[in-house]
Amino acid sequence: MSRWEPGARERLNGAALDLYATKGFEETTVAEIAQAVGLTERTFFRYFADKREVLFAGSELLEKRFVDGAAAAPDDAAPMEVVASAVAASADYFPDERRAYSRKRAAIIEANPALMERELRKMSGLAASLATALRDRGIPDPTAILAAESGVTVFRVAFSQWIADGNERSMVDIEREMFAELGTLASHDR
Amino acid sequence: MSRWEPGARERLNGAALDLYATKGFEETTVAEIAQAVGLTERTFFRYFADKREVLFAGSELLEKRFVDGAAAAPDDAAPMEVVASAVAASADYFPDERRAYSRKRAAIIEANPALMERELRKMSGLAASLATALRDRGIPDPTAILAAESGVTVFRVAFSQWIADGNERSMVDIEREMFAELGTLASHDR
Repeated sequence: MSRWEPGARERLNGAALDLYATKGFEETTVAEIAQAVGLTERTFFRYFADKREVLFAGSELLEKRFVDGAAAAPDDAAPMEVVASAVAASADYFPDERRAYSRKRAAIIEANPALMERELRKMSGLAASLATALRDRGIPDPTAILAAESGVTVFRVAFSQWIADGNERSMVDIEREMFAELGTLASHDR
Repeated sequence: MSRWEPGARERLNGAALDLYATKGFEETTVAEIAQAVGLTERTFFRYFADKREVLFAGSELLEKRFVDGAAAAPDDAAPMEVVASAVAASADYFPDERRAYSRKRAAIIEANPALMERELRKMSGLAASLATALRDRGIPDPTAILAAESGVTVFRVAFSQWIADGNERSMVDIEREMFAELGTLASHDR
């Protein structure tokens, strides 16, 4: 077996998700994942630090989209425009072809409280990075943190709509609708 | 030693927080907590399931305030009015006398990733309960979940302002300001 298997990462990722979905995350071993695609445990660990990392390997990429999206907003953009730009940029990360994968991943995470906690921490990290991007633009707290957290809320709710059974709308459309909905909601609080 | 020690729960709680703050959460044992207030481990376990529970014993009470606060809103209240009523009701749980305790607890939680994940799950649970209360009023998703999550965001940001160094403003005042700020922010997203 050669040291670098072509497509090994993707095959391991696919096999891991299948096993987590059918056997359960806790019950699946790294040996089983590797075996399912004819690779060794050693090869698995060349790509992923552990079983959990298969599910969270994309976190940094998603965070980078957010931060780059925020940076792309005009200098004079209002705080929520910066946030909307960050969230819209993340939509590229969720094309329609990815929906089936995202659905499967979400079901695995929801079935496991420890994975759920990890996912929530990831969202909290996203909000923290976005808040930093806003502060770097001169937007002070608490406005920066409130805007960033609200943006991540919109993102999370949009994401759960995007992976809902039967949904065929694009992530970017749903996100746009959720920002509009938040605007309507928040203007009627008193 | 009598089976029911007067004030044992509060004394254990206070000793636990002191130890978590000075020695660290992981490094503190239940035996040390009990010993610090002249009680036994057995007595500790009569009040708390484990070390972590000392920090999260109030979660159900906070959730109940949210749900009762939502129920107290008029029948024809707009979604964010219901949410604001829920969040305002929770302010009773954070009187000024509690601030020093809340500050100490927050510092302990922030220093420990596992506790932070547990805290985030608690917030996620609050949002889920509030969303259920909104759905029970006939408010459909995604409006219900977006409004509930936004309310918890306001609560969290208000809470972090409330415990910030030097702050002396009340929780209810800060929450009100954060709802107004969200209204301003969300109406300027395009």
